[in-house]
Amino acid sequence: MYILKSQHSFDSAHFLANYEGKCKNIHGHRWKVEVEVQSETLIKEGKNDGMVIDFSDLKKDLRRMLNAFDHALIIQKGSMRRETQKCLMEDAFKIVEVTFRPTAENFSYYFFTEMEKMGYDVKRIKVYETPNNSAVYEK
Amino acid sequence: MYILKSQHSFDSAHFLANYEGKCKNIHGHRWKVEVEVQSETLIKEGKNDGMVIDFSDLKKDLRRMLNAFDHALIIQKGSMRRETQKCLMEDAFKIVEVTFRPTAENFSYYFFTEMEKMGYDVKRIKVYETPNNSAVYEK
Amino acid sequence: MYILKSQHSFDSAHFLANYEGKCKNIHGHRWKVEVEVQSETLIKEGKNDGMVIDFSDLKKDLRRMLNAFDHALIIQKGSMRRETQKCLMEDAFKIVEVTFRPTAENFSYYFFTEMEKMGYDVKRIKVYETPNNSAVYEK
Repeated sequence: MYILKSQHSFDSAHFLANYEGKCKNIHGHRWKVEVEVQSETLIKEGKNDGMVIDFSDLKKDLRRMLNAFDHALIIQKGSMRRETQKCLMEDAFKIVEVTFRPTAENFSYYFFTEMEKMGYDVKRIKVYETPNNSAVYEK
Repeated sequence: MYILKSQHSFDSAHFLANYEGKCKNIHGHRWKVEVEVQSETLIKEGKNDGMVIDFSDLKKDLRRMLNAFDHALIIQKGSMRRETQKCLMEDAFKIVEVTFRPTAENFSYYFFTEMEKMGYDVKRIKVYETPNNSAVYEK
Repeated sequence: MYILKSQHSFDSAHFLANYEGKCKNIHGHRWKVEVEVQSETLIKEGKNDGMVIDFSDLKKDLRRMLNAFDHALIIQKGSMRRETQKCLMEDAFKIVEVTFRPTAENFSYYFFTEMEKMGYDVKRIKVYETPNNSAVYEK
C-alpha cells in the first residue's frame, strides 16, 4: 500500500460554547492539518508515472479547503448570541459558520469527508490544535 | 475511529547494564513520549461535546505519569552495585528504580500498561530516546 | 507489537523525465527517510535484552543504504540523453542510476525491499521529499 501525505495550516479563532475552562473564550490556534491518501498501486505511465497522484494536485486541493477557514472566526451555528454575531459581521470580520462544535476531533471528521467528496481515497486526517495535541479521524 | 494524541517529555539519566557500547555509561536523554487514545465515537453532549476526552485531562494524566521519572537517575533494580546506589541515595539524588531494563521498547510497553490502568483505550505509545530514534508499543 | 523507528537523510538531485511542471528540471531535495521495523517480542537476554534490535545496528544499515545516494544526481536509466550523461560522468560528477522513476513513492518501495533483503521485518518506509510532503510504502 502506498500512502501520500501532505500538510497545510490555517490560523484562526474559535471558542467552545458551554465548555468549562479557558476554551470557552474566543482564542486562536494554528491548526495544522495532515492528509493521507492511499492507493494499492501507482500510476504506470505518462507524466504521473510512479505516483499515487501528483503531489501538487493534492496540495492544491488541501490548501483550497483549508484557506476557506484561514484568518477567520469559526463559529458553531447558533452558539453565539445573535446580536453579537451581527455586530461582528457588520464590522466586516471574516466569520465561518460550521454545523459542528469546532473541536479537533470534529474538524478531522469534517476534513476527511470533504476530501472524500473530492474523490480521494482518504486514509487519515490529523488535525493539530497545538504542536503537542492532535486528533485523527480514520476509517 | 477517532484518535487523540498528546505528548510530554522528561529529562533523565539511565544506563544499560551488560551492554557493549556507549549506553553502558550513565548518560541522559530527553525522552519524548507520545500517547494515542482511541474511540469509535465522540461524546455527544455537555461540556465535552464533540471530543474523545478533554485534551486537558489526557495531558494531565500523561504529565503526572512522566514527571515521576523527570530529572532522575533511572535504575533497573539490581543492576547497580548496592554500595554505589546507597551512596547516591545518601547524597539525595533522585533515583527511580524500575523492574525492567530501561530501553525505549520497555518504556513504551510500561507506559502503555500504565495508561490502560488509568482507564484509557490506548492505541499506541511512542517513546523517543533521541529525536531520530523511537520505539512504539501497540496492540 | 513493538516498532523501532529510525531516520536518516540524503541531499541529492533528480528530475522527472516527461513530467509537465517544474520537476522536469534538474533540482534537489533533502530526502528524509524513516524506517520502521517490527517485532512481536523483545530479545530477552544478553547485551540486547529488552530491545527489538540494537538501535545502532539499524541506524548503521539505514545510513549505509542512503549514503549511496547522497550528494549525487539520481537518474532513471535511459531518461537522459546519452551524450549529456556521458559528459557529466567525464566531469566526475557522482551519478546514481536507478531502474525506476525517482518519485517519493518509488523510493519508498525501493528502500522497503532493500531493508527486507537485509533481513529486517519492515513495517513501513516513509520518504519525505520536502518537510511537508511524504510518501509511504507499507505491506
